[in-house]
Amino acid sequence: MIYPFLTLSLKPEILLIQENDNIILQSANRKLTFHHPISELKLALNLLKNSNNTVAQLRELVETNGNGIEAGNKFENYLDKLINLGWICFSLPIAKAIPMTEHYEFNISTIDWQQESFTLSRFAYLHCFAGELLLESPQSKAKIIVHDWQGAALIAKLSKPHTLAQLILETSHIPEITQEIIQQFIILLSITNMLAVSEDFHLMQWEFHDLLFHSRSRNGRHNNPVGGTFRFYDKIELMPLTKAPMSDKILKLYQPQLEHLAKTDISLTTALESRKSIREYNQEAPITIEQLGELLYRCARIKEVMETKMGKLSRRPYPNGGAMYELEIYPAINCCEGINSGLYHYQPLEHTLYHISESNQKVERLLKDAWYSSGQQDTPQVLLVITARFGRLFWKYQALAYALILKHVGVLYQNLYLTATAMNLAPSALGTGNSDLFADITGIEYYEESSVGEFMLGSRK
Amino acid sequence: MIYPFLTLSLKPEILLIQENDNIILQSANRKLTFHHPISELKLALNLLKNSNNTVAQLRELVETNGNGIEAGNKFENYLDKLINLGWICFSLPIAKAIPMTEHYEFNISTIDWQQESFTLSRFAYLHCFAGELLLESPQSKAKIIVHDWQGAALIAKLSKPHTLAQLILETSHIPEITQEIIQQFIILLSITNMLAVSEDFHLMQWEFHDLLFHSRSRNGRHNNPVGGTFRFYDKIELMPLTKAPMSDKILKLYQPQLEHLAKTDISLTTALESRKSIREYNQEAPITIEQLGELLYRCARIKEVMETKMGKLSRRPYPNGGAMYELEIYPAINCCEGINSGLYHYQPLEHTLYHISESNQKVERLLKDAWYSSGQQDTPQVLLVITARFGRLFWKYQALAYALILKHVGVLYQNLYLTATAMNLAPSALGTGNSDLFADITGIEYYEESSVGEFMLGSRK
Repeated sequence: MIYPFLTLSLKPEILLIQENDNIILQSANRKLTFHHPISELKLALNLLKNSNNTVAQLRELVETNGNGIEAGNKFENYLDKLINLGWICFSLPIAKAIPMTEHYEFNISTIDWQQESFTLSRFAYLHCFAGELLLESPQSKAKIIVHDWQGAALIAKLSKPHTLAQLILETSHIPEITQEIIQQFIILLSITNMLAVSEDFHLMQWEFHDLLFHSRSRNGRHNNPVGGTFRFYDKIELMPLTKAPMSDKILKLYQPQLEHLAKTDISLTTALESRKSIREYNQEAPITIEQLGELLYRCARIKEVMETKMGKLSRRPYPNGGAMYELEIYPAINCCEGINSGLYHYQPLEHTLYHISESNQKVERLLKDAWYSSGQQDTPQVLLVITARFGRLFWKYQALAYALILKHVGVLYQNLYLTATAMNLAPSALGTGNSDLFADITGIEYYEESSVGEFMLGSRK
Repeated sequence: MIYPFLTLSLKPEILLIQENDNIILQSANRKLTFHHPISELKLALNLLKNSNNTVAQLRELVETNGNGIEAGNKFENYLDKLINLGWICFSLPIAKAIPMTEHYEFNISTIDWQQESFTLSRFAYLHCFAGELLLESPQSKAKIIVHDWQGAALIAKLSKPHTLAQLILETSHIPEITQEIIQQFIILLSITNMLAVSEDFHLMQWEFHDLLFHSRSRNGRHNNPVGGTFRFYDKIELMPLTKAPMSDKILKLYQPQLEHLAKTDISLTTALESRKSIREYNQEAPITIEQLGELLYRCARIKEVMETKMGKLSRRPYPNGGAMYELEIYPAINCCEGINSGLYHYQPLEHTLYHISESNQKVERLLKDAWYSSGQQDTPQVLLVITARFGRLFWKYQALAYALILKHVGVLYQNLYLTATAMNLAPSALGTGNSDLFADITGIEYYEESSVGEFMLGSRK
């Protein structure tokens, strides 16, 4: 075993229940019964529950109180099972590793203390959560609670490769960091995948923020709550269905006849098959405000409002998790027949535009950024900036909420693509935009609502 | 000024050029010329470039060498401009704050050293990047390089609220952490938004991984490269257009006649207007393999392969950044007329399914998870697990790559929704799934390819 220095204990939330002559270990979703356990196993389980001991200490106790090596081996089998269930924490005085999942396996590899040099993984991050200092990593199925400054100090040293000898030398003037603590801590980091390893082509291409987000917005290697947990249900009022008017300059939009369109429109197959991104426009006859109105109506209007005990929900022409609908559309008008250039907000219930800003240097930078990031063909005649009112979704959904927002942006993109195709307009989605610039233009607080998608429009050549 | 203790210096990448009697400061995208600067300003700029001095030291130098307070005030005006450009780093012996953007403003608020208690923000994270220990936060437009263990040790202390007096007391036995260093470090954290502040309703609802991802996958408050940077172009071979066959059990799929469909299909408007999520199925007459074949063909086949100098790209019925197409579809069959239950892989060029696994406990858990997370109506007859072959996109795109993947999942969702509606099938997208379970079932390495979307299908009642 690689962790002779470390002490073992049951996770605090695992209950140990003595019932008649049985011992029951119980987690939130699993129960393990030891029927008529021999007294030394009883003792070992109680020690795991109530104190910290090394494997050797526990084993010795079982062996001297029971029938020697056989009892010791049996105990270690049980222990392996408990470790695999993710029920066993590994500790040293300055830190503690807590498994987050079942089917847990600590990464056991032999450490060459003479040769090996150690570096913290570029995916590991130290942060504060609920008053504790945690070291976590999307590569680890455990989290490490760092109890005090010594662990953080060692983590700082490990930002560059260090051998054990170098670590000892460089911390020799720091009291409370001994060779034993260094070795224990390195072992803890190693068995929980917190140390840098040689990266294959796949891992090498991941960025920290992407891998962290992937691992935490999906189920799997962690035990954080995921899904519709309604954690702000009785703490915060849900944001309203639609935004309050953003100005007193309102523009009623053209509304197409859907019954007529349902009969005359191109077929779904034709739309899907002929859709493509177009980034060159007919500058002689730009897109018109009627066309913009028709497009927004067909893709993004509110069709129906439902009153529920959770507040107002709605139906729109694109799917949305829980019918919460957090996305907003802000047309930035460069050149569109029938409307002045500037920035507007689309109100999907009234099917109106609210004027926010005249064209100015910053609005022009929005349009220029779009032109630049789309391959520098034509400047979009209209840029739809799509924002999320985050709280509308965060209020209900946990862990997956932002991932859901981006999927919603995708379904809205495809609505815009297909409908623009049917209308013979030139559509193109963009990869990203500048959320701080949008906040700067509109004065909307970044954490309340900010841009998450961009879509370019124009007339076809 | 709140930072009398901190020393100032020009960011290393800002060049200082002496040209005739002018001094030019030059960044990658901006140039600032000081015409015939007075000698004391020359000296001050050179000191900013080559050493670390406090504002008071710089000012004193300018005043004593120039015409007193007037020269001092003039210098401070220049300095404010340089700070606003994001060109000035603030340092103390153990750490350095580097602005990442223009229009930079350090957060200047008075600190009450007697009363105030300090905690690290829950959005701040300490991690290693390129051999340096960095403290970053999606709330900060600066990053802090922590030079050695003292900064990390103080950060550990700040995981719980501490007043200055408490910090001094608790670090009194640690050499090299003095009251002056503590105060300097707190100031540095304060001016860069790394300390916890009272959170309004909007900020309160953000999770760490979501806000980090939002801020780093969009342009704005950082200066990391974003977009199609091709950073692995000559380092790693681009993943191939399609996956190698996943087994030798191939099933040719039904291929609909598009010309016929283009004429007979429902209109785009009808599809958009009648699309809805349906999670109850006709158990008597389940979905058929012909229907599954038709749906996949209409939504996700490869229509065309383009040979380019970057390798093979393709066209499919949904848009994709750079035509790279990283998404794969794995039908998990529960009950589908004409095909055995189990897990399959869709090959979009051949329009075939490759059999991966019989139905087993783990595949059933995939289906059960879908049932559970979609409100426990019926178990999906077919669950489409959508994965990303990450490298296909990461090879080209930086910072925004994973966000792009989720938008792609969204456009594919809408294709599936609309086409299933046209085919009178029951469609429903899901919010999330278990990527580690998928890796476990298929043996596919998590970092190479893992699940990013889930879509349920069945026959309509």
